Amino acid sequence: MSLFIDHLAAIVGSQNCLTSQGDLAPYLVEERGLYHGSCRAVVKPGSTSEVAKVVALCAEAGESIVPQGGRTGLCGGAVSEMGQVVLNLSRLNRIRSIDAIDYSMVCEAGVILATAQEAALQIDRLFPLSLAAEGSCQIGGVISTNAGGVNVLRYGNARDLVLGVEVVLADGQVWNGLKSLRKDNTGYDLKQLFIGGEGTLGIITAATLKLFPRPREVETAFCAIPHPQAAVELLAIARAATGDAVSAFELLPRIGLEFVCRHIPGCSDPLSAPSPWYVLIELTSAREGGELRAALEIMLEKALELGLVTDAVLASSKEQRSALWRLRESLPEAQKFEGGSIKHDVSVSVSKVPEFLERATKVVLAALPGVRPVPFGHIGDGNIHFNLTQPVGTDKAEYLEEWERMNRIVHDIIADLGGSFSAEHGIGQLKLGEMEHYKSPLELDLMRKIKRALDPKSLMNPGKVVRL
Amino acid sequence: MSLFIDHLAAIVGSQNCLTSQGDLAPYLVEERGLYHGSCRAVVKPGSTSEVAKVVALCAEAGESIVPQGGRTGLCGGAVSEMGQVVLNLSRLNRIRSIDAIDYSMVCEAGVILATAQEAALQIDRLFPLSLAAEGSCQIGGVISTNAGGVNVLRYGNARDLVLGVEVVLADGQVWNGLKSLRKDNTGYDLKQLFIGGEGTLGIITAATLKLFPRPREVETAFCAIPHPQAAVELLAIARAATGDAVSAFELLPRIGLEFVCRHIPGCSDPLSAPSPWYVLIELTSAREGGELRAALEIMLEKALELGLVTDAVLASSKEQRSALWRLRESLPEAQKFEGGSIKHDVSVSVSKVPEFLERATKVVLAALPGVRPVPFGHIGDGNIHFNLTQPVGTDKAEYLEEWERMNRIVHDIIADLGGSFSAEHGIGQLKLGEMEHYKSPLELDLMRKIKRALDPKSLMNPGKVVRL
Repeated sequence: MSLFIDHLAAIVGSQNCLTSQGDLAPYLVEERGLYHGSCRAVVKPGSTSEVAKVVALCAEAGESIVPQGGRTGLCGGAVSEMGQVVLNLSRLNRIRSIDAIDYSMVCEAGVILATAQEAALQIDRLFPLSLAAEGSCQIGGVISTNAGGVNVLRYGNARDLVLGVEVVLADGQVWNGLKSLRKDNTGYDLKQLFIGGEGTLGIITAATLKLFPRPREVETAFCAIPHPQAAVELLAIARAATGDAVSAFELLPRIGLEFVCRHIPGCSDPLSAPSPWYVLIELTSAREGGELRAALEIMLEKALELGLVTDAVLASSKEQRSALWRLRESLPEAQKFEGGSIKHDVSVSVSKVPEFLERATKVVLAALPGVRPVPFGHIGDGNIHFNLTQPVGTDKAEYLEEWERMNRIVHDIIADLGGSFSAEHGIGQLKLGEMEHYKSPLELDLMRKIKRALDPKSLMNPGKVVRL
Repeated sequence: MSLFIDHLAAIVGSQNCLTSQGDLAPYLVEERGLYHGSCRAVVKPGSTSEVAKVVALCAEAGESIVPQGGRTGLCGGAVSEMGQVVLNLSRLNRIRSIDAIDYSMVCEAGVILATAQEAALQIDRLFPLSLAAEGSCQIGGVISTNAGGVNVLRYGNARDLVLGVEVVLADGQVWNGLKSLRKDNTGYDLKQLFIGGEGTLGIITAATLKLFPRPREVETAFCAIPHPQAAVELLAIARAATGDAVSAFELLPRIGLEFVCRHIPGCSDPLSAPSPWYVLIELTSAREGGELRAALEIMLEKALELGLVTDAVLASSKEQRSALWRLRESLPEAQKFEGGSIKHDVSVSVSKVPEFLERATKVVLAALPGVRPVPFGHIGDGNIHFNLTQPVGTDKAEYLEEWERMNRIVHDIIADLGGSFSAEHGIGQLKLGEMEHYKSPLELDLMRKIKRALDPKSLMNPGKVVRL
């Protein structure tokens, strides 16, 4: 063992400083299997002060650090390389405080997202961030990657839910920015750099989070619509007519519904006639009293008159609601039965979604005849999972070799429409090339200036987000 | 005339390059009279590209620039010094685009805030930023200072209303960050540095702004409450019971109501018995149908039962609503009749407002016997205007000499409670000293690192926000 490792172990305790291949293995796995990590050691500090000491030691020794939460990221941001120190934050798992009157809570980085949600519910509040990995992803990772999820339309991304952060900087100093203020105009808003910074500028060790009133009414509708333009117009009307109570607004194409009904047990088309497109609308309100159902019905009647909706079914029970959501949520699973899928996590402004879908569909069909576009997802945020199922009767492996070519075709249209090639998943290492291709040299240069200013030795998650 | 001035005039046209004392005078005035500016020239570019050329020229010549909007800031951020170039953005006053479906608009920096609000209303949308100076302040200034105002509780500060910015950087390059995306996770969120940066890192020339459904129902109540703790508990209940429809929640002490009734014509106590404290509550909703009134009434009944409210009056007409608002809005004016006022624009977390009020009141009374605290304002944001009216029968000028001593006493308590000594007004030059006193050396150092990285020659509004 080297002296450096001894020093690490002295800070965190030897049981929290892992170096044997067997011990390291679980911390090197990336769930999609795109990367397999390597590292010199995994350290698991138990407090912010231990994180600070580890970082200071690494800074002195010139060793680079990869911070790690629940390892559920999809871009390889938490995957380490040979020689690096993995700083795993899962032992910083205290909810330091929670305040119903202030609608806020302070969580350490290692708190599991679902645990934070549960703590909020215990005091009759909502922490609205919600995503597929919520049972294992951690608050620190969620904030460091500015995670999105299903409630962004109503409550914003992770960034919008953070009032303050505590950060260990590249030299090991601790910045206590853990304020719980709704208004504070005293200089540059430094927390914004660490939110979404993927650990490349400092390590978030705790955060003050915004809470909201707990919803008491939920109304869900599954609507047949004639085309995507109707979806964005319907959303605009729905926001106004319901007093901004729309919390989810998801797009589904006919082919997607067919895949689901074909492959997922218990799923069937809830409407009597086929429609080219569908939207799943959910309204929530913290107010009790039944008005939400009426608001939804009035809004849908108007939409029927306007031709924006051609048919609709409203959930009348929890079971019906779950059944409608299953049509949307099992789509990625259903797609697997149809062969390989080339994926895109893109966004444009909401009003440009129809143009994007039309252009992208036309171009991918021309480039790869027979390919089956299954665009679905958070149309309420302008965020479409533009997934392409392989042509019927072709070879999957051969098809997947088209991944990068199709990405370029789709991302070119996204760039032309002023959109984003990574709406909610971040950059990590997976999308570094796309970023360098699509961002202006000026913006890349600004990012490098920030990186150099805050991490001059480039020891904080080097090679992620920004390449010097 | 120097060659430099000739070059400036060549860029913007000689009629837009002012140098005579008479022409310069209006651009050097600061409305509170705390500062009187000086400068070498005022240039009024007509486009982003002209702004870029002016900045590039200044960068080359080593001349420093003070960007200027509507000059309504309260901290001297737009006041220039001898030799500096004032870059006035009022000619960049186009609304470049507005989109009802996308709930967004693109405004140039010089668009008057009220004009932007009006443009949104024209397409049945709301741009919610609203403050006293809205008839003359400009979008660029509003974003550069992260302005607050009366709708922060519901819609956030200026920062929360910005989807993208166009910025002329310190070297004259233009960064086009004018996206209109609800989700974009591609690297550091650079716009956050320019929002609230007060022109010290670059000059915002345009911004994409978020719009919201236009409110169709408004309900207003003026409530007697026993103490500030009741106010924050009432707010917590009101948010939940109304489905987060609370758009304003303002605190008023008995002495404030007495000042208003004594000095402002047409104002009278709307309740039958005096109460030590009051809150003005306003609910708004984009939904039509009368449910908001019912929600307010149900909530107030519950609050009466809980003893959080002892009496209340609800507005039944536009006129009654205006009359209730006048009680709150004319307070600063009414205070003037009672002599000098030492002011604080402070915030703490909402749940700590009662503790702040109790401690601060006790300490200022001990330090200056007879002083009359009149704490009022945006308690819904934790933002209190802790104004101190002079003791009866004392000399105003002598009293106002206590300003800095009282500031220190109050701000010390704010610091102890993790609050902010400048909740919505910013730093400019007025609060630079307070910032250096209260912020940690670490945070000041981070700010300097950012400043040096983005403005290495320190030519962008030097001496404001951060001192190198």
